Amino acid sequence: MANQRVYVLGGAQTDFARNWSKEGKHISAMIREAAAGGLEATGIEAKEVQVGHVGNFAAELYSMQGHLGAFLVEVDPAFSGLPTARHEAACASGSIALLAASAEIEAGRYELAMVVGVEQMKTVDPKTGGDYLGTAAWYENEAKGIEFPFPKLFGKLGDEYDKRFGLKDEHLARISAINYGNAKRNPLAQTRNWYMTEDHAKATGKFNTVIGGRIKVSDCSQVTDGAASAFLASERFAAQYAERRGMKLERIPRILGWGHRTAPLEFAAKIQASEGQPYVLPHTRQAIVDAFRRAGLKDVWDVAGIETHDCFTTSEYMAIDHFGLTRPGESWKAIEEGVIDMGGKMPINPSGGLIGAGHPVGATGVRQVLDAWKQVSGRAGDFQVENARRFATLNIGGSGTTSCAFIVGC
Amino acid sequence: MANQRVYVLGGAQTDFARNWSKEGKHISAMIREAAAGGLEATGIEAKEVQVGHVGNFAAELYSMQGHLGAFLVEVDPAFSGLPTARHEAACASGSIALLAASAEIEAGRYELAMVVGVEQMKTVDPKTGGDYLGTAAWYENEAKGIEFPFPKLFGKLGDEYDKRFGLKDEHLARISAINYGNAKRNPLAQTRNWYMTEDHAKATGKFNTVIGGRIKVSDCSQVTDGAASAFLASERFAAQYAERRGMKLERIPRILGWGHRTAPLEFAAKIQASEGQPYVLPHTRQAIVDAFRRAGLKDVWDVAGIETHDCFTTSEYMAIDHFGLTRPGESWKAIEEGVIDMGGKMPINPSGGLIGAGHPVGATGVRQVLDAWKQVSGRAGDFQVENARRFATLNIGGSGTTSCAFIVGC
Repeated sequence: MANQRVYVLGGAQTDFARNWSKEGKHISAMIREAAAGGLEATGIEAKEVQVGHVGNFAAELYSMQGHLGAFLVEVDPAFSGLPTARHEAACASGSIALLAASAEIEAGRYELAMVVGVEQMKTVDPKTGGDYLGTAAWYENEAKGIEFPFPKLFGKLGDEYDKRFGLKDEHLARISAINYGNAKRNPLAQTRNWYMTEDHAKATGKFNTVIGGRIKVSDCSQVTDGAASAFLASERFAAQYAERRGMKLERIPRILGWGHRTAPLEFAAKIQASEGQPYVLPHTRQAIVDAFRRAGLKDVWDVAGIETHDCFTTSEYMAIDHFGLTRPGESWKAIEEGVIDMGGKMPINPSGGLIGAGHPVGATGVRQVLDAWKQVSGRAGDFQVENARRFATLNIGGSGTTSCAFIVGC
Repeated sequence: MANQRVYVLGGAQTDFARNWSKEGKHISAMIREAAAGGLEATGIEAKEVQVGHVGNFAAELYSMQGHLGAFLVEVDPAFSGLPTARHEAACASGSIALLAASAEIEAGRYELAMVVGVEQMKTVDPKTGGDYLGTAAWYENEAKGIEFPFPKLFGKLGDEYDKRFGLKDEHLARISAINYGNAKRNPLAQTRNWYMTEDHAKATGKFNTVIGGRIKVSDCSQVTDGAASAFLASERFAAQYAERRGMKLERIPRILGWGHRTAPLEFAAKIQASEGQPYVLPHTRQAIVDAFRRAGLKDVWDVAGIETHDCFTTSEYMAIDHFGLTRPGESWKAIEEGVIDMGGKMPINPSGGLIGAGHPVGATGVRQVLDAWKQVSGRAGDFQVENARRFATLNIGGSGTTSCAFIVGC
């Protein structure tokens, strides 16, 4: 039996440069803005939405608030009674919410789902925030009592590449510079007005301090307040939607494929398990391969670009070979040859990614799919990849623990 | 297009009388025991499981741990790579996980899903725990600085019944006594060896103190450590499973119907919205009606019993008329006439419910469906309802905010 197709009708993103705590605003205001903004951007009426899903990592800690799905109901009187839920897999929470929403559409339960990814992170100081992020790892074993555990874990990912294949920090600096550079063309990117050059990223010292291991400030994604929405529809709803907008249904992007895999939680266990294998994170590789297989695509060159999870430069370095842009361990070649630049053969993170655009944890997976939708709809403005027909995303929770990939396109 | 049917193959529950903190055990041990115990109970091999879902409310607060889905991977080497996720809607988290898992099976994504509901609550003192539970409500508006906010909110539910229809506390005491009584026959119930009679529940004073409003100790569900698992399967997997066990497929219970609705988050907003309507919590009523409609059943008398969400006696009082056992406001009649007793026309909570069996928040929805499965499979032992063919559940998050209902049967 063939599944229902799942169409993406667009959505909205908050300005990731905003600090909602300084504005005196509750996390519910972020949910409201992403949901209401998405209705406005898509021209969907609130009464047409049949189910709501929220992706969020740890509002219990950052905002002393659970039950976030219910806040969708507060957005519009027409939402009273709307079935809602919140979904979590650390930094992959947004993708997990999209998977839950798309499963319900594939199953024929609902015709139109609203998905909001959200995280308010500036409620606490950076050290406390770093501790909270440690709950995405095995907290007691890998994070408790460790200052900024995640930069250290992803530093070890770089160390593992170094050990297996060799790794030069200048390639990580280039990844950082590309993301910061791309972010300057994204009007919703957190760092769009920040100063960060490749020379700056290469340097170590007062203006680019080491956070942990080989990870410096320039290698890190941002602490971000933000939310993003995406509206997913059945073929029946999408056909009506296309008709009333005078569009052809074939022009509305779909989720062409997806992948979802979970590796052992502890970083050391992952590395031990992949010893002697071609890929450092084989389950992340598998999630990508699954997405391309489900989309019926041959390989990465069948997409026009990638929005990937550069929580640190090392995770983007990993994504380059795991997507198949190079052979395992040779990500540096794609960096040196300009493959991943805007205008390159396979632009990565035209939005600026997590380093440039920002990383409101639970929002990231939704923001990636929304940006992929913008690309394949020709609506990405100054960060548009020309003639993009299909785009891929990769969203990672923990130290490569939960990996989710989507292919969005027509 | 007809959806795939979703079969329930059974599962396992931890002993809700255990205190895992006193045993020095991490929440991962509870997940392991429910998952591994479920494999053993069902005779399913780990390698047959294709996806894992966790229902959990607030491990970030109780256990300083997020990303719970990933802990499923730790249970068995065969689970390496298993797609996993965690789902949350406060005390309805277990049902939300079941809904996510069943949607994926209906969609044809997977053939066999493992669902584990879990909460470790005895990591903190009762007052801190009460504060954490406040994040299931709108924390800043309804819970911050309030000692034990939830008993007070559900006290107000009783007050609203009193105002609209009249309510005698002796009927709430009877609900308490029935649940404690039923729990004595459930070998996994937290209170199976506790002392609580109807006279005791009726009394107020030193041995039954007031917690908030009209809610006394005897009206409250328990603070519980516990986990429960349920295995959901497609028709294809269920048919193979039946064959290798020498059973007929028609004898394997299914999820016949489900309902899922969300009301405005704040209790005052709910009550204001239902003013002048027959039901005090119309969205909870709707979730129940939706479940029966999807199951193709006429009314509540088409099921043999109910496992309902008695977080407080007032919520069970509400469930009685909302399920349609009586006309709105007349729940007391069903109590007085013995309808809800074991051996009555519509036994409620043969397991002892949340008051008697215990209420490990994120586990409750899964425990209810597992107990419903036990009933319709004739495996409920000393708390078996005779000739039960279909059973209903109702699981509620917040102050009647998220309502989920299931009908399990053949």
